[in-house]
Order: sequence, then structure tokens, then C-alpha cells
Amino acid sequence: MINKKVVKLINDSRNIAILSHIMPDGDNIGSCLALYNSLIKMDKNPLVILDDDVPEIYKFLKNSDKIVKPEKEYEFDLVIVLDCGDAERLGKSVKYLKNGNVINIDHHINNTRFGHINLIDETAAATAEIVYKLIKEFDIQLDIDICQCIYTGIVTDTGQFQYSNTSFITHEITADLIRNGVEPFKLYKVIYQNNSKEKIKLISKALSTLRFDYEDKIASMIITKESFDTIGAKDEDVDGIINFARDIKGVEVALLFREIDNGKIKIGFRSKDYVNVNEVAEKFGGGGHKRAAGAIIDGDLDNIRNKIIETVIDVLRR
Amino acid sequence: MINKKVVKLINDSRNIAILSHIMPDGDNIGSCLALYNSLIKMDKNPLVILDDDVPEIYKFLKNSDKIVKPEKEYEFDLVIVLDCGDAERLGKSVKYLKNGNVINIDHHINNTRFGHINLIDETAAATAEIVYKLIKEFDIQLDIDICQCIYTGIVTDTGQFQYSNTSFITHEITADLIRNGVEPFKLYKVIYQNNSKEKIKLISKALSTLRFDYEDKIASMIITKESFDTIGAKDEDVDGIINFARDIKGVEVALLFREIDNGKIKIGFRSKDYVNVNEVAEKFGGGGHKRAAGAIIDGDLDNIRNKIIETVIDVLRR
Repeated sequence: MINKKVVKLINDSRNIAILSHIMPDGDNIGSCLALYNSLIKMDKNPLVILDDDVPEIYKFLKNSDKIVKPEKEYEFDLVIVLDCGDAERLGKSVKYLKNGNVINIDHHINNTRFGHINLIDETAAATAEIVYKLIKEFDIQLDIDICQCIYTGIVTDTGQFQYSNTSFITHEITADLIRNGVEPFKLYKVIYQNNSKEKIKLISKALSTLRFDYEDKIASMIITKESFDTIGAKDEDVDGIINFARDIKGVEVALLFREIDNGKIKIGFRSKDYVNVNEVAEKFGGGGHKRAAGAIIDGDLDNIRNKIIETVIDVLRR
Repeated sequence: MINKKVVKLINDSRNIAILSHIMPDGDNIGSCLALYNSLIKMDKNPLVILDDDVPEIYKFLKNSDKIVKPEKEYEFDLVIVLDCGDAERLGKSVKYLKNGNVINIDHHINNTRFGHINLIDETAAATAEIVYKLIKEFDIQLDIDICQCIYTGIVTDTGQFQYSNTSFITHEITADLIRNGVEPFKLYKVIYQNNSKEKIKLISKALSTLRFDYEDKIASMIITKESFDTIGAKDEDVDGIINFARDIKGVEVALLFREIDNGKIKIGFRSKDYVNVNEVAEKFGGGGHKRAAGAIIDGDLDNIRNKIIETVIDVLRR
């Protein structure tokens, strides 16, 4: 599926920008650096520009320290945007789009096709999968550094080969990455065995508030602003905590109520099998997907918890 | 690597026993049922005999309800033992070994080769991998039921494609299972999103006891008999709790002190990168592996916690 035009355009260019979305994740960093390291091997002059800092856990990836902020002006022959559903998500880096031909490479289903060439494969589990296929078209050998970048993109965007985007192609590519030297347990250690102390304390605190409703089909937890501040937690420490509630036997809907400011509550919604939590979140001005959604509401924590739980019970009763 | 003799022996037999170790896990149940379902397709008369009950989460696997206890006497032409390092781990089912030719199929490095034919591949991530290769030699098509059994064995014995046993072959086989209809996210849901309420309460309780020592390189937790009993937890609910301590950034050694009886403490040891916890556990009459070990000591919970932590500090100081 890799467009020959894309390969030719890259081969014919020398100064190449690589851009991606704000708040970088494993697929974003992994894809950018896999491409960067490949272009270096091809004697090109690539530059990865990202608005935000590289998260600590991805700094082991080769040349992560070469990534720059969107501060200076550059001359580019070609701009490649990776893993970015629309141009707005580029943040300040959006300004480089005018610098040359734009190749937009992504796997998000709602990609707005903002590039001059758009290489969109919604069946790919990660943008790193598409980048892998692209690199295979180049006249270079895969090496362990490139493969570790691709592996990082795949393992993080599939939730460890778990989400419904995981296909046989995902596993075939992963097999090839291991054949080229990737040692999965070493990468798992770096990526997944690196929780902050604050995160663990926040998990402990949240679990202590676990409440079950409607024959244990609903499990909810709260995080008060006070406990968040006392622990000294960061926003990213909240990631994944709601899954502890969802992953309990018999639970269909999990809810996490987080007081982000006095009188301002952020609600996370997850469902396991059949409840459309996007619908519930929309009732409260939020949204998301069928099995994962969110909303922010003004009000008192306990009142909101009760109100949302009542609404979910109504949906479960249908 | 599949022995032609094994394939011929199976093809020439009709009444076939399938045995495995006590305290069944995903690889044990998955391997047994993958083989069972294949032999049924080949018009054989197989029987899976296991000492213990099938864990709830594996009951979705086809024909898990046909598994019997080692109660009656049977006539067998052939006995196949799966995933069992030595004959003693068969429990009461060991008695069926005398009923016929024994094929011993396993991936444990220390397998005692107790069969008449031993098909041991220590490089296989799971016995299910070897069973997959065996089934490919049979004159039947893989179907989704067989593939789900093999997938279950692989995903559980590799810790979700994480452990160092995970090879490119593991991923190639998994790709083929998905090609044959396995939907990973559905199996993850059954296997990993099914925690007991008691387990979550136990995690919450254990995390609340988290203590850091020696520049946060040691993280330890306790579970008292009182809290275990109050929660109404089961032994299996303790599985994996120690990983919360290990998976914290900067932690090298994680310890879990569980009071299994008054004055009887079970200690779990885990290390991340370099400490040989097997050595530490051996000092206290226990043992295990370099990165995961255990011991049981008589004494007072707090005293033992302090003593063990001191010993670990000595090791870290070296």
C-alpha cells in the first residue's frame, strides 16, 4: 500500500521536517524517531520538531535528544507529518506546513487529509506500522535502533497487543522487529515498570474510595483535589486508574470523578461490553467513544457522583 | 522440530489421555484443550484429566466442561502429558502414566524427560506453541476454537508478550491465530478484565502499606492475616500484587510480606535489573529465580520486615 510517489519524494529530498501532534505518546515519538533514524542512514538531513518535551520513558530511543522545539525558522524540501489526525493538533509546529510539500501519514479514522499527499491506513494499529512499511521501501537495512522505535509505537498504541486494532499484520511486523534484535522484555521494563511513586499513591487513594452500585455493575472512584495535591501527583499519574474499576468481574460501567478545581469535576467513563458511555457523557456536555468517554461538570463532588450514577443506572435498566 | 514418530503415534491411537500439572494455568488449560479439540476433529477419543478445577476465567474455552478429575480407571492407547516439568507435578493423575506409551511435551528447561518420547523445546514461550506446531502436522484445519486455546496459552505464559521467552516465533504463531479468527481484545477482556472485588480491595490495602527504603531502591508492602480475612480474599487474589511495588521508577527490589498464619510470614521477592533475589531468599530457607523468589519464615511481621530489608540493603551496598 505504500505509495511509490511518497518514496520517490523522500528519496529526492534532503532537508526533511518530521512533525507530530502535541502531548506526545509512544506511537508519536516512536514513529518520528524510526523515520528520523532511517533518514540519517540514507544521508538525509531530517529534523524532528515537537511542541512538547519527550516523556521520560521514551528518552532511551535513539536520537530522542535531537528532537527540537518549534522555535526557529528552517528551510525544508519536504514536511512529513506523523500520527496527527488534523493540522490543529500540531500546536505551534503547524507553521512549518507552509515550508514544502506535506506528506500526511496516519492511522486515525477521522484524519482530515490536510497533506498534499495523504497516506492514511485506518486498519494500521499504529502509525509506526505504516512507517515500518515505508522504511522497508527505502534502500537501507532495518537496525535495532529503528526497530525499537517501531516496537515502542506498536506496543503502546495497541495496549500491549490488546486493543481491537491489533491485527495479524501487527504481529507479523513485531516478529520481524524481534528478528532484527528487539528484546521485548527490556522495552517493557523501560516503558511499563517505570511508574512514579505518586501514581502508585494515587492508585491506592482512588481504590480506597471504590463504590459499587446497581448489583455491582457500576464501580466508581473519586480523586479529590486535596488528595491529588497532598500526594503531589501530576495529570499523567491519573492515566489508567479508571481501568482498575472497569477490570473487575461483573462491572459494566466504571466511573472516575476527579476534582480538578474546587467545584469543577472531570469524569471518566469506561464500559466493558455493551453500554454506550459516549451517549451518557454527551448528556453532560462531554463525549468520546462507545467504551471510553469523558466530561467536565461544575458542581459538588458527591452530588455529581450520585447524579451520574443514577443516569448510568437508567441506561442499564433499559 | 515436531517428531514424525509423535505424529504417527497419535494418528495410530484412538483412546488418548491428556494430562497436565496441578494448579492449572492458562498454558496448561489452553494446551490441553487445543490438543483435545484437534483430536476430536480427527475422530479420536481423547480425555483431558486434571486434578484441580478449571479456573473460572478459562471456562470460555471450548470443551473445558469435558475435563474430568482423576477418579475412574480408563483404557488408553496413548498418554500425552503437557506443560509438566516432572511426573510428580501431575498429582493424582500420575497413575495414568502406566496406561500406555507416554509422550511428554513441554517447554520447561528442567524437564526430567519422564516420557517414552520427550518433545521438549525450551525455546518455546509456551507449551501451546509446541502444541500449535504439532497440530499443524495433523490432517485437520485450524479453527477458531483451537486457536483461542493456543492464544490463551501464549498470552498468559508470556505475560502479554512481555517475558524474555517471547520470540519472533511467538508473534508469527499469534499472527496465524488471528488470521484464523482470534480477536485479541475479546480474549483480553475475559482473561484480564475479570478481577475479583476482593483482589482489588487487597491491592488497595497492600498499597496503603507501601514503604520505601534505601533511597527508594527497596519498596515493600504487607498483608496481614486480619485484613486478608476481613476482605474475604483467596490465595489467588495475592497474585501479581508485588508487581505494583516492583514497577515503580527507581525500585530495584520489591518485597511483599504476607502473614499466612499468626507468626508465619510468606515473603515474595522481586528484582528489576541486577539483584539476585534467589540468593537472598535462600538465606531464609526459600528460593526461586534471580528476579523472582519466595520464602516462608516464622516470626513477627514487623521484625521480619525489618530483618529482610536490612539483608537486602546489605546486598545493594555490595
